[in-house]
Formats: sequence, C-alpha cells, structure tokens
Amino acid sequence: MIVVMNPDSSSEHIGHVQRLLGEMGAVSCVIQSARGKIIEIVGGNGHVDKSILEGAPMVERVADEQSPLMAMDRKPGDQTHEVPLGKHAVIGGKKLAVIAGPCSVEDQSLLLEIAHAVKEAGAVGLRGGAFKPRTSPYTFQGLGEPGLEMLARAREETGLAIVTEVMCVQQLDAVKECADMLQIGSRNMHLPVLLAKVGEQDKPVLMKRGWSATFEEFILAAEYVMKGGNENVVLCERGIRAHEDYVRNTLALAIIPEVKRVSRLPIIADPSHGTGRAHLVTPMSYAAVACGADGLLIEVHVDPRRAWTDGSQSIDPVQFRSLMTNLKAFAEVSGRTL
Amino acid sequence: MIVVMNPDSSSEHIGHVQRLLGEMGAVSCVIQSARGKIIEIVGGNGHVDKSILEGAPMVERVADEQSPLMAMDRKPGDQTHEVPLGKHAVIGGKKLAVIAGPCSVEDQSLLLEIAHAVKEAGAVGLRGGAFKPRTSPYTFQGLGEPGLEMLARAREETGLAIVTEVMCVQQLDAVKECADMLQIGSRNMHLPVLLAKVGEQDKPVLMKRGWSATFEEFILAAEYVMKGGNENVVLCERGIRAHEDYVRNTLALAIIPEVKRVSRLPIIADPSHGTGRAHLVTPMSYAAVACGADGLLIEVHVDPRRAWTDGSQSIDPVQFRSLMTNLKAFAEVSGRTL
Amino acid sequence: MIVVMNPDSSSEHIGHVQRLLGEMGAVSCVIQSARGKIIEIVGGNGHVDKSILEGAPMVERVADEQSPLMAMDRKPGDQTHEVPLGKHAVIGGKKLAVIAGPCSVEDQSLLLEIAHAVKEAGAVGLRGGAFKPRTSPYTFQGLGEPGLEMLARAREETGLAIVTEVMCVQQLDAVKECADMLQIGSRNMHLPVLLAKVGEQDKPVLMKRGWSATFEEFILAAEYVMKGGNENVVLCERGIRAHEDYVRNTLALAIIPEVKRVSRLPIIADPSHGTGRAHLVTPMSYAAVACGADGLLIEVHVDPRRAWTDGSQSIDPVQFRSLMTNLKAFAEVSGRTL
Amino acid sequence: MIVVMNPDSSSEHIGHVQRLLGEMGAVSCVIQSARGKIIEIVGGNGHVDKSILEGAPMVERVADEQSPLMAMDRKPGDQTHEVPLGKHAVIGGKKLAVIAGPCSVEDQSLLLEIAHAVKEAGAVGLRGGAFKPRTSPYTFQGLGEPGLEMLARAREETGLAIVTEVMCVQQLDAVKECADMLQIGSRNMHLPVLLAKVGEQDKPVLMKRGWSATFEEFILAAEYVMKGGNENVVLCERGIRAHEDYVRNTLALAIIPEVKRVSRLPIIADPSHGTGRAHLVTPMSYAAVACGADGLLIEVHVDPRRAWTDGSQSIDPVQFRSLMTNLKAFAEVSGRTL
Repeated sequence: MIVVMNPDSSSEHIGHVQRLLGEMGAVSCVIQSARGKIIEIVGGNGHVDKSILEGAPMVERVADEQSPLMAMDRKPGDQTHEVPLGKHAVIGGKKLAVIAGPCSVEDQSLLLEIAHAVKEAGAVGLRGGAFKPRTSPYTFQGLGEPGLEMLARAREETGLAIVTEVMCVQQLDAVKECADMLQIGSRNMHLPVLLAKVGEQDKPVLMKRGWSATFEEFILAAEYVMKGGNENVVLCERGIRAHEDYVRNTLALAIIPEVKRVSRLPIIADPSHGTGRAHLVTPMSYAAVACGADGLLIEVHVDPRRAWTDGSQSIDPVQFRSLMTNLKAFAEVSGRTL
Repeated sequence: MIVVMNPDSSSEHIGHVQRLLGEMGAVSCVIQSARGKIIEIVGGNGHVDKSILEGAPMVERVADEQSPLMAMDRKPGDQTHEVPLGKHAVIGGKKLAVIAGPCSVEDQSLLLEIAHAVKEAGAVGLRGGAFKPRTSPYTFQGLGEPGLEMLARAREETGLAIVTEVMCVQQLDAVKECADMLQIGSRNMHLPVLLAKVGEQDKPVLMKRGWSATFEEFILAAEYVMKGGNENVVLCERGIRAHEDYVRNTLALAIIPEVKRVSRLPIIADPSHGTGRAHLVTPMSYAAVACGADGLLIEVHVDPRRAWTDGSQSIDPVQFRSLMTNLKAFAEVSGRTL
Repeated sequence: MIVVMNPDSSSEHIGHVQRLLGEMGAVSCVIQSARGKIIEIVGGNGHVDKSILEGAPMVERVADEQSPLMAMDRKPGDQTHEVPLGKHAVIGGKKLAVIAGPCSVEDQSLLLEIAHAVKEAGAVGLRGGAFKPRTSPYTFQGLGEPGLEMLARAREETGLAIVTEVMCVQQLDAVKECADMLQIGSRNMHLPVLLAKVGEQDKPVLMKRGWSATFEEFILAAEYVMKGGNENVVLCERGIRAHEDYVRNTLALAIIPEVKRVSRLPIIADPSHGTGRAHLVTPMSYAAVACGADGLLIEVHVDPRRAWTDGSQSIDPVQFRSLMTNLKAFAEVSGRTL
Repeated sequence: MIVVMNPDSSSEHIGHVQRLLGEMGAVSCVIQSARGKIIEIVGGNGHVDKSILEGAPMVERVADEQSPLMAMDRKPGDQTHEVPLGKHAVIGGKKLAVIAGPCSVEDQSLLLEIAHAVKEAGAVGLRGGAFKPRTSPYTFQGLGEPGLEMLARAREETGLAIVTEVMCVQQLDAVKECADMLQIGSRNMHLPVLLAKVGEQDKPVLMKRGWSATFEEFILAAEYVMKGGNENVVLCERGIRAHEDYVRNTLALAIIPEVKRVSRLPIIADPSHGTGRAHLVTPMSYAAVACGADGLLIEVHVDPRRAWTDGSQSIDPVQFRSLMTNLKAFAEVSGRTL
C-alpha cells in the first residue's frame, strides 16, 4: 500500500502519517517522486485502516499495490501523449512514426546508403546500435563512440532523427549528444539505476519491453523514468520469450490495445526482433498498425546476408519500400496517416 | 528419416527396402498412410546412406525428420486450399469467414437470439460447445446431446453453418450428425487416436492449436487427420500459454503468415480465447486479418456477464456488429472481402 | 462457487437449493460426483449469500472455486494414501517404489532382458509403452496389443507389476487386462472423458502431469478420476515445457513437497522425460527422493543408442544398478527404504 | 565462428588471419580477451575453410559458436574450481557453503540478531541487500550505503563473509569495500558493461541466473567476467519464470549437474527466490544438495511476516537451524561435509 502526499506536504505532515501508521502496527518508508513524497507501507499492511489515512491532512490518496500507475494513466476521453522524435516528427499523434535502419552501425558509407533509402521510403527516424549488448563476450560489441559519430553524420545528411541504445549510465553523455531518442534495450528495462538517470535528463526515451517482462513490470519501468521528471517515454513491444520455435521471439501484439486502455503513453512495435525472421516483418507490421500501434521500429540492411548482427531478421530497402507503400492503406483504415 | 514408397509398391518392394536398411545397420518399421506405405527408420539412422535408398525400386523419396510435411505443403504460386463451411461458405477463399456464437450452448432461445444477431451482422458460421472440456469435474460440462439438437435447430432457422467440438471418438457420430465442421479443441490437438478417426470421415475439421504446441506439433496434428484421407482441415491460432498476466493467453499471430508460407491449409484466429479479455477482441480481430487470417472465431453472448462459461472474453451483439462493420475496410486493404 | 450436498440428499433437497439460488439471481446446474450431488453456480455468482445456502437442509458445505480439492485433501497428521502396485508393492508407503523399463515395447526378448535387469537391481514395476502417442503420424506408434502381450509375459517371468499407457477409452479394456497400473500420459491429462472412464474402473492410475499444466489443473485431473470412485491415483512430475534449451523438459521438483502439503495422493518423479538427457537421470533421481518423492519412473534400455524411441534419455542396466545402489542412502536419509 | 590466437600473437599475425578471411569473403573483427586476441567472423561465415585458418601461424584454435566456453571448461578428471568466500571458507570444495540472511538490510540490530543466529546454525556467509532492484519505483529501494556499513559491522561481530549485490558500475567501489563476494542479480546477469567491470577487479563474484536466461546465456555471463581476468565466479540457480502458479519461480535444479558436466565453476542454489514460498525452502535445499550443489543461498528473517521485502519466502532461525541439522546427512550421502 502507498500513501501519496499532496505536493505541498511539509515534513510534519509526513511525520504525522508515519506516526499514524506506527500506531496501527505498520512499518513505513518515504520515497521522493517527481510529484512529491510517497509513503510506502513495507510491513504490517494487514493492520492498516485506509480511511484513517485518507482522513489525515495533506494525504492526496491511498493506493493498493494493484494500481501502481501514477503518471500517464488514461481516463476516458484522454488523448495519447505526443512524444517528440527529433525536430520534425512526433510519436503518439495521428501520423504513424516509422524508425528504420541497421541492427548495428558497421560502417559510415553503408549507414548513409541505408539512411537515404529508408528516408526516401518514408521513415522519420534512423535506428542503429553503436553500443551492442551481446550474449557472448567473444562477439562484436558495437563500434562504440565512432558509431555514434556515424549516426550524427547520417542525421546531418538526411534529417532523420536518431534512435540509439544507451546501455549504462557511463555511456549516457556520449549517447545523448548524438541521439534524438534514447533507446533502453530489452535487457536494460529491469534496471532501476539506468532508468532513474535517464529520467533526470530531457531526451525522449524509447523503452523496449523486457523479453520476459510482465505488463506491470513494463509499465513500471516507464514509471521509473517518469518519476525523475521525464514524461517523454515511448513503449515498444519487441517480442517475448515463449516456447515457440519458428520465430526467435513471440510478438505479443495484444499489449498494444492494453497499453492504450490504461495509459497515455504511445507504443510502437518492433516486428524485426519480435519475430527474428525477415519474411514475417511485413505481415506483422500491418498487424501492429491494425491493432493500434503508434509506429514501427524495423531493421533494414542493404545486404541482410552480410549484416554483422541479426541479418536473418533484416529486410532490404526494396522490401522496406514495398512495406511502406502498402502500410499507407492500413494506416488510413486505422484512422492514421503515414 | 522416412522412406516414402510409390503408391503402387508391392510388399516385395517394401521388403527389399527394409533388407537394405538392415544391411546398413538400421532398424525400420512400416506405416500405412492415405497415399501409400512409408518406412520409418527407428534406430541406427546414422549408418544410412540416403543415395542407396533413393536408388531402390519404387522409392518415391527419402525425407529427414526436419521436413515432416507430407500433405498440403505450399510451393510458389500455390493457392490456399478452400475448405467448405456448410453449403454456402468456404474458408480459404477471397471472402473472410467469420464464425461467432456463445462459448457453450446454454438454452435454445438464447442460442437462437445470438444466432440471429451474428447472422445479421455477417457471420457465416455459428460456434457453440455442447460438450465442454473443463479443468474441474465440479463445473458445468456442457449440455451434451440436447445441446447438439439446439445447434441443429439454430441452423434450420438461420442457415448458419455449425462448428462444434468433438472431444472423443465416442461422441463422433452424434457430433457429425449436427455439425458442418468438427472442432478439435486445444487440449485434443495432441491426441493421435481422435485425430486419426476424424481423418477417416468426411466432415471438415477446425484444428485449434494446443496452448503449448510448437509449430511442428500443430502442423503434424493436421497431418494426422489428412493421413486418414480428409484434407479439409482449417487451422486456428487461439493463443499460447506464456508468462503474460494481463491476458489469459498470448495470441501469437506470427503463426498466420508462417503457416501461409509452408502450407496450403487455411488458418483463422480466435481472439476470444486468444486474449481472454472482451476489450481486446476487436483490435486483435483487425490485426489477425491484417497479417493474413482467412477468418475469425469469435465468442458472442447477449449478456456476457451471465454467460455460464468464459463470459469475460465474450462480446455482445452490439460490439460484434460494430466489429464486423469496421472489419470490412481491413478486409479490403488485405485483398479480401467480408 | 459450488454447493456440496449431503450424500443422503433427495431430489427435493436439490430442488430447494436451486430455487434459493434462483431467487438470489443465480443460475445453477447439478453435477453427480462419487460422493453425492454437487450444485455449481454457473452464473450470477455475485448475488449469492453463502450463509443462506449453508442454512439450507442437507447442504454439507459451500466452497469457492479457490479450493477445488474435494477428495484426498490433507489435514495435519494425515498419512499419504497407499496405492497398490501389483500384488507385492505399494506407492505412498515407507518403501520407495521404482518403476523402470523401456520407453516403448519393441520386442519380447529385449523386454525380458530389460525386465530381469531392472528387477535384479530392485525395481518393483516394469514400464513400457504398447500404445505410443507420437507427434508425427509417420513415426512408430507402438506395437499395440502384441506389445501388451509381451508385457504380460514379462510379468509372468519376473513378477514385476506392469505400468503402461492407455491413450483412449477404446483401448481401456485391452490395457486393463495386462496392466497393474494404468498410465495417463502427459498429453491425456487434460481429457475429461478418458479421466472419467478410468475413474469408473478399479485398476490404480498413474497420472502424469501435462507439460504445461498448472498445479490446479494437475490436481483436478486426479479429481476427475476420483469423482468416478477410484481413489487409487498416483501423481507423476515429468517435466514442464519452459524456455530451457539444455534439457528436453524442465523437471519442476518443487511440486513434490507442494502436493504433499495439500493432498494425500502419492507423487513420483520421471527424471527421464523430465530432463530428456541420460546423464541427468541419476542426479535428478537423488534430488527427487531428497525432496519427498514416493518413487521414480525411469527409462532403461539395454542399448539406448538403438532404442526405437527416446534413446537419448534412457540409461543402461549398468547405470541403473549403480543408481539404485546409491539411491539407498538417499532413501534412508529421507526416512524411507528402498 | 571465432579464431583464438596464441597469446604471443603480434599484430602482424592478427592482420595475416584477417587478410585470409577477407580473401575467403568473410568479414571479421578483433576482440581482446584476458588470454589474448580473438578474431570473430561477423559476416560470410559460410565461405570459410576452417583448415586454412588452422594452418595459419599463431592460431591456437578455431571454434564454432556452438562451443562458446573458453575459460573453466571441464575435462574428465578435473576438479571444481574453489572460490574463496571471505577468509575462512571456499565454495566448490568438499565442504558445502551455506550463505544466509535477510532479503534486504533493514536495521542494524535486526541484522546482527539474524547474523548471530545463522552463524550459530552453521552458515559461513551472510547475505543481505543494501541496494535492491525493485519492480516499482514506489517501493523500498534498499538502505544504500548505510546498509553496507551495517553489513560490515555484522562481519566484524560474527566473522561471517558478506555477500551483497552490486547493481551498477557506480556502486562498485562502495560495495567492494564491504563485500567479500559481489552478487550479480538475476536482472543484471544480461549486462555486459557491469560484468566486464566486475571482471576487472578481484573480489569473487556470485552470478545469479537470469530468470529467463538459457544455459548458454548463463555460462557466457560468467565468461564476460572471466574474460576480464577474474576467474573466481560462483554460479547460482535461483528459479526461472515459467507458467507454474503455486510458486513464484520454478527452481530448475537440472542445471546443477549440467554445469558440473561442462564447467569447473562451482554452482549453488537459492531455494528462497527459487520457489518464493517459505514452506518449500527446506525440501528444495535437500534436493539441491542431492543433485550436486556446492552450497545454498537462503533467506532468513527473525520475523518473516514483518520483513520489508520477500517475507513470504523467508524462513525463521528455528526453521533454519532444523534445516541445517538435517542437511548434514544429505551432505554426507552426497560425499560432502557441512
């Protein structure tokens, strides 16, 4: 159970509520959020009489753990929050936002070739990893800072907004300088320290779902960022780890309408990681838009068979152009534009 | 490894191949399929020289376990096999087939009310369980044969084709008499005996995916039916059991384009069981059609809160009508009609 | 919610309770169990006042769905129910019961060789499938009735009790004639029709857990059997389907102490299917006994590399003898004998 | 595919191998490991002739991705590597190592009370989180540095070695100062940056398995640490996320003998997180030791109902003493001491 205090609460108010809790046999601790103080009951929940707390001065509301959403919850009639993607685009508005590019940044000229191709086909963002979290220490870990510079150069040439991953706090300054949107990878969604730091700066955040995260864990990861003051968070469904064997991950699209129901945060889909198979990227892109996605994150490589990482899930520029052409009609039927 | 014999093979031919295998140190057994005899190498696979087998008289082909698909495999340019649904509809053609109705048959007048409502909104089939497989023996197990009679009466009144589950061989005759399409439930997809029997009769079959079945297990369940001679099989994705907690099952839509890639069998989606949540049925119906489904199986009840089973995933006739109206545009964009 | 009626209830009593429910706005149906009638509230649960029902004549108790266990629930001080395994052994007593043998019956002399070997090493039961449920219709499906005769012959020669699978109601008579204990396979645990029939006859039942069954589904499958009157049910943990890749299944041993906590039914472990790897069978056998298993089900083959089915998880007689020798000490430490 | 170069290789040798690869149409990059340079083929694997590489000067070996283990692989006859735990204990030797304590450090006197109790019962290490990774930002996140000081004080008083979690690189210095063994939590097992940093310092590491990590991901996480030069890694099975509902996690004990088969790293089990249920901790401790665990990590709290975090999986000192007393016999039967 948590007690949300009014933003104007003094330390006397806080102390008063903690004393009340103590008298009821409960143990509590105080947490600072962006909107003010929150008191968590950490022991002896069973003894607490909610009405007594609700009657205390400056208590805004008392919430069960069952409803952990504090920021960006959706009430009837609410619009999706629009998150800026670079200078010329937003995610969460009427227009779908498509972000495309290679899995990892490999080489400047290759990156530029891909960037021009996806821009021409209608993408508004360029994806590409400079820092790559890999399962084995004996595989390519990304180009690092030189990769970031290549991304910056691609933005200059094409005007595309840059979306790239930040894996740890130490990389934050360097990545921020180049990126228009900071990607939190699937592995990192569970890391309070990184989430909190990303919440204290002002670049928008693309939060990929952990591959075995529950709905609550996913939503609360966004909450960690927003608690720091940064409400520009875009969620991204990228497939879960299930028993299925014909795909690398199981793209669980029902999370898109579920997020729309409870939250104002925009949500996009990544059909590339979400299936791991190039031939499934196009149909799953249509499906994601049909059930309400605000955009797509797609891996495109000029020669997928020679991609350093994840070639089996990358499509080539010809396939991407065809996807974008057909997607227009699905966007319109879904009440969107492309 | 299996050796597919030419349909005209004599027992001498079979004997010859088994002798060859024996000389190579392998153990084999003979299986009768609808198209002829198959020899399976059950032991000592490692010693087998495929080219010797391929040179033997009347051997059609030698296949690894990796490519188990024998019937209805898809080659470039192939069309999806069209399976009749009653007298007036097919599944697998240009027109989407929507089958709707209550989870279980509860009462004649209620069933008729639902049947008329879904018919009017554009459904071509009526679903409804007379025999219900339930987790607990202390819950409602379906009305049984009286339920079948109610379904037959609903067909008479509305012209809708009837789709209902057969849970075991003993129910087969009774269910066949009433149903236009026999449903194999998710639990029963793994049962060779039932699948083989259903393959020996001629009513079309709706094969629901087991909730933890792999792609291969799903496809091979259809193969069990087709091996008996009945090639009118429709596959149905109905959600898998994963770690997700905001849904009852995870609707794994990528299996739709994957089935289309390797097989000529039609495939539909069940967004009701596939999510377990009424508010997710409509968006996931759009998504299923967008990625290529040949139809939908949807639970509709006039008063979902009072449904005897699965009320939380049923939509009401007003919601169903609205779904069907909007679905038309998604169908067209996907190159289909409704 | 269910209302358990006193065994002596008349149809008037039943009618009275259903009328009460109707007046409260609830819909109900009547289910016959081995111990008497049960009324299930299938609709309008929310309106029901439990105390009114509890006051009605001949109502034994009113139970929520949360506590579905009717038979064999365990109260403090209860002993595990002892289930006979042939004439000379029981499962659930102080002495551990080890059942061993090939995955499938392949040949009479081979079966006898294995049977003598496992008997000598201390097994009290012989396992072996005559009817095999297989994923592909083009693989060996078991020898069928000739396989049953081979098992019967092995019992005659060795005195071992026979445990073999029955896959459907039609096989029941033939299997019963040969088997001392009827195995319900992992696929079939979810089949009410088969469970009910097996509950109406008197041979003991070995109930293997479905590979994705929840605890409740597992326990309720046993309940289906016991509802028919047959309380001689032994549960068997045989591994679940999870994301792990170094094993075929994940042996979830914690279910053993959990079953012991809530139920008087004995439970054994199958480390062969439960891991799918011969080299893991021995350590996992020790672990199963250490956490309270009443016995083990182990695949033994004289030449695992040549076994027709599941060779990679079979151990040979030398390994089995060594396992049994070491198991004795684990049994003693766990307060058991072998 | 990777090419492991001899430690003495010069940059000419490296260049020579990369040229050979280029001529064969492959793309490669160079990775520095603790033992020397490794060349990874990141594209065009299919064209590579292994024998040409193996013939090149200073190439130690060429390995497929299938065998990624570089350090601590086990050959027949190898002993488990012994990792020091404080000054008086090791993990991986004949004597089992039991580490016990509260989930999180809450208070100095409480911690001391628990520490004395577990020490007396035979524990050699004290666990307790000062930094806690939590799902919600509105829950207790650990005491932080004051918690570390309380742990240091408990070591002084009891002589117990301290095992506590480090969540990110910034905490590393503070945690190192207090801890005898650095715990990498389940969430953090997937983080190359943290793993690499922990590998560059010399405190031993306790690596908890990610709750949905595969065997390979788990082993390779240890490899990330060892690549930095720190080979004192202890693995810990703590349960995986599966569909089971009677436990919080599924303790997958078969990983213990599997690790023993391929690696010299010691491995312990955490039956507290591994089940999430206090009543399952004791039987699963016995099972873990029976299948070869080198030790246990157990949550103990003087009043589990009042624990700030994870009370439902904590046992109290009386239960812990009883567990340790009985464990002795299981240890002996398993060829260990306690």
